[in-house]
Amino acid sequence: MPVAFAKNSDLGRTALAQPSTTPTKFSPGALADSFFWPKSIAFVGASPDHDTIRGKLLMFAVKNGFTGELYPVNPSHQEVDGFKSYPKVSAIGKPVDLAVVTIPAKLVVDTVEDCARVGVPNVMIIASGFAEEGGAAADMQDKLSEISRRTGMRIAGPNCQGYFNALGNVTATFSPVGDSLKDQQVFEAAPDRRVGVVSQSGGLGFALCSRGRAAGLSFSYVISSGNEVDLSAAHYLEYMIEDSQTDIVILLCEAIRDGERFKRAARRASELGKPIVVIKVGNSDAGARAAASHTASLTGSQTAYHAMFQRYGIIEAANLDEAVAITAVLATSPLPKGRRVGIVTGSGGGGAIASDTFTSFGLIVPELSEKVKALIRPLIPPHASPLNPVDITAQGGRTGPLIMRCMEILHESGEIDMVAIVLSTARETQVSAVAENIKAVVKAGTPVTAWTYTLPSLIGRKTMAEGGSTLFQDVRLCGLAYRKLADYAEYRANRLPEPEAPAERLKLDGLPASLSEHRVKALLAPYGISARDERLVRSAAEAADAAATLGFPVALKIQSPDVLHKTEVGGVVVNLVDANAVGSAYDAILGAVKRHKPSAVIEGMLVQKMAPKGHELVIGMVNDPTFGPIMMTGFGGVTVELFGDVAHRPAPLSVDDAKEMIRSLKSAKLLEGFRGAKPIDITPAAELIATLSQVAAANRDVIQEMEFNPVILHADGSGLTIADALIVLKR
Amino acid sequence: MPVAFAKNSDLGRTALAQPSTTPTKFSPGALADSFFWPKSIAFVGASPDHDTIRGKLLMFAVKNGFTGELYPVNPSHQEVDGFKSYPKVSAIGKPVDLAVVTIPAKLVVDTVEDCARVGVPNVMIIASGFAEEGGAAADMQDKLSEISRRTGMRIAGPNCQGYFNALGNVTATFSPVGDSLKDQQVFEAAPDRRVGVVSQSGGLGFALCSRGRAAGLSFSYVISSGNEVDLSAAHYLEYMIEDSQTDIVILLCEAIRDGERFKRAARRASELGKPIVVIKVGNSDAGARAAASHTASLTGSQTAYHAMFQRYGIIEAANLDEAVAITAVLATSPLPKGRRVGIVTGSGGGGAIASDTFTSFGLIVPELSEKVKALIRPLIPPHASPLNPVDITAQGGRTGPLIMRCMEILHESGEIDMVAIVLSTARETQVSAVAENIKAVVKAGTPVTAWTYTLPSLIGRKTMAEGGSTLFQDVRLCGLAYRKLADYAEYRANRLPEPEAPAERLKLDGLPASLSEHRVKALLAPYGISARDERLVRSAAEAADAAATLGFPVALKIQSPDVLHKTEVGGVVVNLVDANAVGSAYDAILGAVKRHKPSAVIEGMLVQKMAPKGHELVIGMVNDPTFGPIMMTGFGGVTVELFGDVAHRPAPLSVDDAKEMIRSLKSAKLLEGFRGAKPIDITPAAELIATLSQVAAANRDVIQEMEFNPVILHADGSGLTIADALIVLKR
Repeated sequence: MPVAFAKNSDLGRTALAQPSTTPTKFSPGALADSFFWPKSIAFVGASPDHDTIRGKLLMFAVKNGFTGELYPVNPSHQEVDGFKSYPKVSAIGKPVDLAVVTIPAKLVVDTVEDCARVGVPNVMIIASGFAEEGGAAADMQDKLSEISRRTGMRIAGPNCQGYFNALGNVTATFSPVGDSLKDQQVFEAAPDRRVGVVSQSGGLGFALCSRGRAAGLSFSYVISSGNEVDLSAAHYLEYMIEDSQTDIVILLCEAIRDGERFKRAARRASELGKPIVVIKVGNSDAGARAAASHTASLTGSQTAYHAMFQRYGIIEAANLDEAVAITAVLATSPLPKGRRVGIVTGSGGGGAIASDTFTSFGLIVPELSEKVKALIRPLIPPHASPLNPVDITAQGGRTGPLIMRCMEILHESGEIDMVAIVLSTARETQVSAVAENIKAVVKAGTPVTAWTYTLPSLIGRKTMAEGGSTLFQDVRLCGLAYRKLADYAEYRANRLPEPEAPAERLKLDGLPASLSEHRVKALLAPYGISARDERLVRSAAEAADAAATLGFPVALKIQSPDVLHKTEVGGVVVNLVDANAVGSAYDAILGAVKRHKPSAVIEGMLVQKMAPKGHELVIGMVNDPTFGPIMMTGFGGVTVELFGDVAHRPAPLSVDDAKEMIRSLKSAKLLEGFRGAKPIDITPAAELIATLSQVAAANRDVIQEMEFNPVILHADGSGLTIADALIVLKR
Repeated sequence: MPVAFAKNSDLGRTALAQPSTTPTKFSPGALADSFFWPKSIAFVGASPDHDTIRGKLLMFAVKNGFTGELYPVNPSHQEVDGFKSYPKVSAIGKPVDLAVVTIPAKLVVDTVEDCARVGVPNVMIIASGFAEEGGAAADMQDKLSEISRRTGMRIAGPNCQGYFNALGNVTATFSPVGDSLKDQQVFEAAPDRRVGVVSQSGGLGFALCSRGRAAGLSFSYVISSGNEVDLSAAHYLEYMIEDSQTDIVILLCEAIRDGERFKRAARRASELGKPIVVIKVGNSDAGARAAASHTASLTGSQTAYHAMFQRYGIIEAANLDEAVAITAVLATSPLPKGRRVGIVTGSGGGGAIASDTFTSFGLIVPELSEKVKALIRPLIPPHASPLNPVDITAQGGRTGPLIMRCMEILHESGEIDMVAIVLSTARETQVSAVAENIKAVVKAGTPVTAWTYTLPSLIGRKTMAEGGSTLFQDVRLCGLAYRKLADYAEYRANRLPEPEAPAERLKLDGLPASLSEHRVKALLAPYGISARDERLVRSAAEAADAAATLGFPVALKIQSPDVLHKTEVGGVVVNLVDANAVGSAYDAILGAVKRHKPSAVIEGMLVQKMAPKGHELVIGMVNDPTFGPIMMTGFGGVTVELFGDVAHRPAPLSVDDAKEMIRSLKSAKLLEGFRGAKPIDITPAAELIATLSQVAAANRDVIQEMEFNPVILHADGSGLTIADALIVLKR
């Protein structure tokens, strides 16, 4: 007898129980509706033993009210849980939209071939023992991949925990969460703003769902993607973004396999205004990448992820609690216009902690104007405070109407952008919040959340959910969620158009893998990368002549595809003041380089007029295998090395993007009139970054790394000098 | 009819229900036992209306099982809640150990005088409407203070929420927590490690208690200190630290009023090995202090608190959740020997998040040796991972024994210092942890905690508590608590003896309030502060002569008590290369200073040989009104200004303390062989900081600020040059 799935979640949605996506928007290879909305499911390996994974799948599907056809497939049984059992999928003799496979790994390939034979469009392999084991097991996974490519069948998993579709009451998972959902006491705060979950970890994906429900969230789909032999997290993300019944997606991932599909989905989410909250796990690989350039050592694969997330306004959460808190606030809040928080509190200490917390997250807790204070003062005791926090003081109960009135005054004042209520929920009989009042303020455009400094009561959770809002137990999560909400609102308000990469390609034929400075400048000259005040020479005499022409002092630098770190091998001498010095330096450099690497191909030396004084920047690019070229910039010296003050953005960038990137550095204050110095225009540096990013994007299949270090931004405003440059090609 | 208070907490403790402090250790003015252990309590203002604050106090005392005498005092009633009521305290005619006063503020002074007349030793004033209102109300608070000083009566509050003593079943608070404690379902994890709470916020103090109990903690005393007219947070802290039945104290404070008592209590806690966890609220006053020196602008009063906390190993928590998490781990864990965490998980994703989290808190998740991996490999499936995290993979239930065995192997390996178990508690019927196994490992010296990625189940909480351990829902709090535990263990292992301040006093008679560089150096010459290579001059000719004697290049600097910021008014010229330049600079400086401040007293100019190249440090001191002299150091330039890379420590410091202080700066890497440079010995700088800290401590009643900026630590290891110095006296 089917048990209604997650009663609290349904809310009449079963009437809508059909896919509501707009397939025209999908990119090639996108997931079909029959995957999440099957009319028939075969459970291959189904068993009457409900203590096993194989036994739970069918049981949960039934228990949670699947209304289509169910076919157990198991040659050892005539029937399972009252359903007729078949020896194999091809024996069913009726259409199967989805086959869920939970048999030993070594039997899986044959089963999948059997499914293919009868045209099953979707197979989900729960079974483990494939690529994660290596060896022969990995070969089996390759075989699955081959079947998918050959037949067009979509394969989810292997080694996954399945999915459920709360809209359609489709449960195809053995997660215990699938069993307990219906028992969970939930108070839905935003039933019309459904959350989808895409997780590369089954345990955590379903945990996000049960934790989210406890926080008042309602879900659409939850899927665990497993080894992703065919369908990947990006496919599921894309599906949910296009789905009109999914409003927010939580993505938990360790590695995105399909970077382009992910980018398309992220771009669509940004267009549609659907927030994506991401938990990126496995963040400890810093420096794992081999470093040909300084840039590469500062740009790990994690950096590429963070840069991508930032580009598309994807909101990062460090763990499950943060993800649920942020999603709860996103689901229940209008977007605020700024970062000002108004606090109403019944506890002075609670208000102070809330204020400290919001401030520590970069939010503003402004003092209210005299006008607003005058409105509040008559309402509160003489020893209470009408500042912000508005402290109505402990009054031994019945403070709800007063707190609500103060909330409304804050909302009406226009002096704050979000309201936080600080209250005690120590009693189960009453709470100092009134659902209708909160609902009205939220509807009128001001986000409201509450933090309880005591343990949260049921009545507190219920009242806040009825108000369409969130009750926090942890004030830090409240502060974090408001910060992320304000960031997201700012992202949406200031989205810059994503520049297109130019079509022109560099002519790189016949060049060595490492392009030294003179070659880089020659190559980029058409893009306006200047090579004035320098000359390539091939003898001491030529060097001295060139220096005399350019004007002293000069620098002299070896040019060789075999010498990437010139300074370390004595390949650079700076501040040469006359022809003699230049001649001796030429010989000294040549000797040093030959000692260091006798086989080095010497292209010559670059004579360069010393640049005017200025600020040294490093500008670089690393071509990430997943997301393509990632630009980097930072200031030279200790700020990069000691304080990690570098910024990363995915290429291509506009000049405005590049300016924002430079300004995001803490060290950018040095350019903005630090200690009374004259401000310096960053436009030349931003133009250079933008140009390089365009070149990197247009040539992403051939350029691996770029490093321009140092780039000297002249203190006198006369532009910049590129004092060294390196491009490493993919080979 | 008395209801047993907080049944789960008693555990036979009522047999011990008596004060167990060692009064001989107390400092003068310490709290007497009769305050927390009254044999009789008068509730002044007691009322039969249980909806009012006045009505709740007596009711809660009775409900929670107070066994001494109770006297309602209220002239409007013959009896309250079945107890005979008295018109005033002096009418009771029997000894009263504690009078709890909840009547309108304007009646309080007379009542307290009445109590004093009959020798009541302790009065606790719940009533509000005193200093927090200002004006006439503040005068009443002064009057209370006067009564206390005159009669020796101890006064708690006013404007507080009272206390309860869980050991003695004494409830003297109207907090709703006092009402709900007995109903709370608790699983005590460490009933023999009791927690005391001292809070300047009543609401938050009692919330810490109910939240702590939910996390498995057991309490001794919880008190809200209110306006602290006489008894302050430091008194209660001192009492609990000396109390043999209190093992850990949580302190929530906004401002410590009695800095010396606080320091004594903190020192005793450090001696006794009792952790103090502090929540310091009101952290947003940065820069509020008027800044005579650069040091002062970098040393707000918050900095002084943080420096004090660090000195005594006091553990900072940002909010209630952090405080409870840290305290729970402190209460249940042996001190680890290092920072290595071993993780056992049933979810790969859960292990990865835990690993990311621990790593982000500076803990180490080391890969296990081949030897240990070989022990684990046979126990887990072929696709599971014996690395760290040890991932046993999802196995559809019954994973408890395997997780426990892996925990034991990690403990026995000696390769980790703490164990974290990552599990699902999605089921209420079983959990993958076994109390006895956990208990044994904890007892054998390895901390164990668990993080559940699902919602926490009752059976999960109960099992972990029975194992004497903690179950976390938020992995961040688990990581934070382990980090703080490791910090505390390191503090205890490496505690440096606290240096005594020397007795010698500086002779400051007749000096101006601001001592310029030459005066500072003359004054500190007996301490070995060098003034070689410089001379005070009073004419251009003298300056030129002095420069010739010292050797060029030199710097020339105005010396005036009226010019604190010399550079800003043209009072300094550096790099003067010959006598002519010195002469002109003398005239130029004099002109500039006179233009800037015609009335400035000119003491002369300092001719100073230019220091060798080196690293610039700033060393300073601000005399904090609560905690006395706080030393500061940082590197010159952008690291202080842009990245806030400064360190603070309370004076006096030993040379070892000062070395640790310098090394705590991120910029200290510059001295440790940065980018292949020769390491520089920091001893001369540490000696200077230690000496100045001794001078500051010995003269704390007269010196307000010090600033030595810059101090040039010579790159060639030849010591340091003090290139500027300023002392500001208290006036």
